[in-house]
Amino acid sequence: MVSSECGNLVVLGLGLIGGSLARAVRENGFCERIIGCGHRAPSLERALELGVIDEYTLDVDSAFRSADIFVICTPTLTASSVLEQLLPQMGADGPVVTDVASVKGSLRDTALRVAGAMPPRLVLAHPIAGSERSGVDASRADLFVKHRVIITPVEGNEPAAVQRVRRMWESTGAEVIDMAVGTHDAVLAATSHLPHVLAYTLVDALAGSSDSEEIFRCAAGGFRDFTRIASSDPTMWRDIALANRDALLAAMDDFSEHLGRLRCAVAEGDGDTLQDTFMRAKEARDAFAEILAQRDQ
Amino acid sequence: MVSSECGNLVVLGLGLIGGSLARAVRENGFCERIIGCGHRAPSLERALELGVIDEYTLDVDSAFRSADIFVICTPTLTASSVLEQLLPQMGADGPVVTDVASVKGSLRDTALRVAGAMPPRLVLAHPIAGSERSGVDASRADLFVKHRVIITPVEGNEPAAVQRVRRMWESTGAEVIDMAVGTHDAVLAATSHLPHVLAYTLVDALAGSSDSEEIFRCAAGGFRDFTRIASSDPTMWRDIALANRDALLAAMDDFSEHLGRLRCAVAEGDGDTLQDTFMRAKEARDAFAEILAQRDQ
Repeated sequence: MVSSECGNLVVLGLGLIGGSLARAVRENGFCERIIGCGHRAPSLERALELGVIDEYTLDVDSAFRSADIFVICTPTLTASSVLEQLLPQMGADGPVVTDVASVKGSLRDTALRVAGAMPPRLVLAHPIAGSERSGVDASRADLFVKHRVIITPVEGNEPAAVQRVRRMWESTGAEVIDMAVGTHDAVLAATSHLPHVLAYTLVDALAGSSDSEEIFRCAAGGFRDFTRIASSDPTMWRDIALANRDALLAAMDDFSEHLGRLRCAVAEGDGDTLQDTFMRAKEARDAFAEILAQRDQ
Repeated sequence: MVSSECGNLVVLGLGLIGGSLARAVRENGFCERIIGCGHRAPSLERALELGVIDEYTLDVDSAFRSADIFVICTPTLTASSVLEQLLPQMGADGPVVTDVASVKGSLRDTALRVAGAMPPRLVLAHPIAGSERSGVDASRADLFVKHRVIITPVEGNEPAAVQRVRRMWESTGAEVIDMAVGTHDAVLAATSHLPHVLAYTLVDALAGSSDSEEIFRCAAGGFRDFTRIASSDPTMWRDIALANRDALLAAMDDFSEHLGRLRCAVAEGDGDTLQDTFMRAKEARDAFAEILAQRDQ
């Protein structure tokens, strides 16, 4: 038997992401034992039943003490309270703590506020993977294969702790990249948080209009794809919007400025500006499709 | 042999839509003969080779004289010039003329301006079908099956002419519905033209930002779906934006107002408004998914 790189891996929060991480590392032997943790016994029982974890506990503090790696896989705002609870216990020789939240600045700020500095073994990370389905029943060992995981190490981080988080994600088949906290939050605001806000806004505006019945009856494939993300979990996206407020506002303002310019072009019948804008966008989108196609090979 | 409902059907413009209409009526025997028409011989030759049409001509006026139904399948702005050319020849006993353009008000206005009134046999229509592919090689006899075709009859229309256009589209397997011109343009602005403008705007804004390389490298599935329509043909969408100016501006303004409200909620950390908005949108989007699922059965 190949020896594992890590003894006990604790996964706090066994939803789609936590469950998929647990399945992946259980399959690939990265750690010896996977301990599920959470505040609801039934879903932990379910995870045990599905073979996602080896055991579970409802006691976060004891799970923390037994961990070599402790992964916070709760929703974004809950991750912040969990961190508050754990920060006083994080020492130079305790477990490596990491997370999977969509916003990194808010967690860093929690650490700075509570502990005065980022603990050496707290390494924030964000796997860019998901599904329209949620919950441990939707979890899959291959969810992260060929997906990006962004790690946002900071100066005070212990290199071995960063390396350990990197290895954990690499073991799942993910492509791990480093990024500054601020860059991560700006990039995710642009590519994910803003599109969700736009899709939610569009569907809500149409649902409230007097033509709404005819509107939805006549919508076709383009509308279906464009609005698919408006079916995402409202609570999760509320939390992300609150946690990434400043970067999201900047992205919204930048978008609105561009939309305002396009509005002028439509109002003035300025076909050249419209064509140039649409052409630049098409070129960028086609190039993006190429990146995706190469990644899928 | 079952007798056809119509003798000669002329299709002007053999792209994806014109080609697919020709294929469908040729297969289902709705008309006796399909005559392709256009200004480029090679693409008409190609249509003949593919068995999409029975014959072709480059002479629009002679094609018009030989037609029982004349379908203008050119892009939106070209349709307007074709109509200008044909309007003086449209009499009480000539062919039924119809079209497939995405905007109906601009063609109605052309007719009113040139002829003073809508000719009795000019029946505007819009099949809501398409594909990321274009051209006659992408045409398919089943493109319209279970898709909506909106007819926008007006008071002066001859009922038999309206019925003929309806029957033609029904023969392709489409579901034909009637709508007022203004409603059509408002509904299409909301469900199609606005989403295209938003997707083009987002991709153009991101492509021009300093983080653009990292942005596109880190974008995932939600972004892919949301921006797919930004790969659409820039010229076609420029023309649609110009032709449907007023309805598009109204839709853009309504959207911007809603986005402005959401911006306030983000800025003020107003989680309740965010959650309520996202929840309403999710409910509407889930209901829309139900409509689509039923249609696909």
